[in-house]
Amino acid sequence: MTASEQHSHLNETLAAIRPVAAECIAEAAERQLTLTKPPGSLGELESIGNRLAGIARCCPPPIPDPALLVVFAADHGVQAQGVSPWPQAVTRQMALNIVSGGAAVSVLARSHGAELRVVDVGMLEPVDGVEDRRVRSGSADLSEGPAMTEDELLQAIGVGLAVADEAAKAGFRCLLGGEVGIGNTTASAALISVFTGAAAEVVTGAGAGAAGEMLQRKREAVRRGIEVNGATADAPLAALAAVGGLEHAALVGLMLGGAAHGLPVILDGVIVCSAALAAQALCPAASGYFIAAHNGTEPGIVEALRALDLHQILDLGLRLGEGSGAVAALPLVRSAAAILREMATFSSAGVSGSTV
Amino acid sequence: MTASEQHSHLNETLAAIRPVAAECIAEAAERQLTLTKPPGSLGELESIGNRLAGIARCCPPPIPDPALLVVFAADHGVQAQGVSPWPQAVTRQMALNIVSGGAAVSVLARSHGAELRVVDVGMLEPVDGVEDRRVRSGSADLSEGPAMTEDELLQAIGVGLAVADEAAKAGFRCLLGGEVGIGNTTASAALISVFTGAAAEVVTGAGAGAAGEMLQRKREAVRRGIEVNGATADAPLAALAAVGGLEHAALVGLMLGGAAHGLPVILDGVIVCSAALAAQALCPAASGYFIAAHNGTEPGIVEALRALDLHQILDLGLRLGEGSGAVAALPLVRSAAAILREMATFSSAGVSGSTV
Repeated sequence: MTASEQHSHLNETLAAIRPVAAECIAEAAERQLTLTKPPGSLGELESIGNRLAGIARCCPPPIPDPALLVVFAADHGVQAQGVSPWPQAVTRQMALNIVSGGAAVSVLARSHGAELRVVDVGMLEPVDGVEDRRVRSGSADLSEGPAMTEDELLQAIGVGLAVADEAAKAGFRCLLGGEVGIGNTTASAALISVFTGAAAEVVTGAGAGAAGEMLQRKREAVRRGIEVNGATADAPLAALAAVGGLEHAALVGLMLGGAAHGLPVILDGVIVCSAALAAQALCPAASGYFIAAHNGTEPGIVEALRALDLHQILDLGLRLGEGSGAVAALPLVRSAAAILREMATFSSAGVSGSTV
Repeated sequence: MTASEQHSHLNETLAAIRPVAAECIAEAAERQLTLTKPPGSLGELESIGNRLAGIARCCPPPIPDPALLVVFAADHGVQAQGVSPWPQAVTRQMALNIVSGGAAVSVLARSHGAELRVVDVGMLEPVDGVEDRRVRSGSADLSEGPAMTEDELLQAIGVGLAVADEAAKAGFRCLLGGEVGIGNTTASAALISVFTGAAAEVVTGAGAGAAGEMLQRKREAVRRGIEVNGATADAPLAALAAVGGLEHAALVGLMLGGAAHGLPVILDGVIVCSAALAAQALCPAASGYFIAAHNGTEPGIVEALRALDLHQILDLGLRLGEGSGAVAALPLVRSAAAILREMATFSSAGVSGSTV
């Protein structure tokens, strides 16, 4: 596709996103009160179920199954600033490891029954066995200028849009976002700072292991990247091209495409949540389709979830990425729908109500 | 079995419980460092996996599957004090609803692949379709005297021991505890107060809906029950007979039996956790086999988990009981084992290590 066609695809997708159905959320909340349990006793599982009803525009909502986890892989020029203790080759090695079944997310996806797809949207080099939808070989150093051009950004978003379209066509009822890319928590911190207004120092964390001077360099790279590029929330596409990564852009496409198809999109950790902020900036209604899997340990995720108005399902101290937290939460998302669909009501089961 | 035979069965079970294998926990923690992820990045999932290795006495541990959730049903004489807004008939109605597949725990068990068994250990009346292992028709009012005799206690514990033996023989690799019994959070609060030393007012909560004057009556019933019966942690069997319920006793049997068979036992909410305290008092090593599913919303559960030295997996505001929280956590317990079994190591996957 040409850049202009990519732009059209994005604009059509944005136009297709409807706000989630508030009346179905209300209907689900009413239905919860008729089910054989004390009111509110399933806590967050009730909230998730009600949210799924709003997303699916029906109550009870369908079970969000089958589910597809898409892991976008890319490299980051900002790694030249020494922001991560892991060599860039690890992006390719881990992409292959995920495809081969040996990564944490591979194990979790098997264990929890999610289909898994790894898409190279811009690693430094292609890897046999990893789906090739490469936009460029790694992004440029965001601390010195834009990470990518606007054309490249639109292409990377287009990869995510295309994957969402393919998934909807194939009958998937739930999308999960994941990523692999050494250096990508640096880009994520920059995006979170831009879209939430929080200071770079506050939202930049250890990622996969930055500490001491390395963490200082990382914070400085984030601060400089925002300044050098003049990235602001008012121009979300420009900000995403300036301080994002290719996998962030593809995730934005996946999320917007999922929302346009009326599918729930389960977010993972700080990287996926940072992309969700960009998606929300492009289309505020999109975040109604997002479900926050976990709160991780990165400082930026707290700010991101607050700005997305989402509450996490899991609090397990996860900080691995790959989509591992999203897949970890999947069984509970399924069960939240099953509760609304399958539980008996007080009247159908002949169970007496409370006397007060 | 006679009371003396029941006592022998209990003593043999207590003698068979070995402390979990610290060396296997250490081996699992070492193994986590070789797997393709930043050290510690799977947070609590790593802790659970390591714990499962200690329980199974091998690393990696087997997947704790198939899993059996046992819901013990019983009634409570203390309901005469007006401690719950739900009529006692609801115990029988919900036991039947669980068996019929319409309760929250039925839906969760189907969704998460746990087998479900409902055992009547002392409802006011038997119910067709619910397994009959009735010790007596409801306990006596604990606020006026012992809830049951010591013979009855041993019989009810024996029901749990027998179910654990049957489950181990049938090849189950994980046990989950659940319960149904209107009034049973009152007995649970009394047990937690006795075994943790926390004041009755502190550990007595709303349960399935006690508020205002009803909550005051509930607190007073707990306080009086402990006082009237002279229940103390030094005499755990006497305390359990005095202020426990028949389902608490059966749960103690299930937990001790599970520990004796080397099986992980996933705890549910405040009721199951209160029984776990009694089990721990009878055999301190037993709690090494317990896994805390969630922290619920009842005040007593915080004290109970602290005394059990356990940290919950889920924080979802659950307060339903039935074993619903235990089943909700099951997929993550399975995955914690799968991660240790199935993830690639840095060397096997050819992934570079961190440079710092």
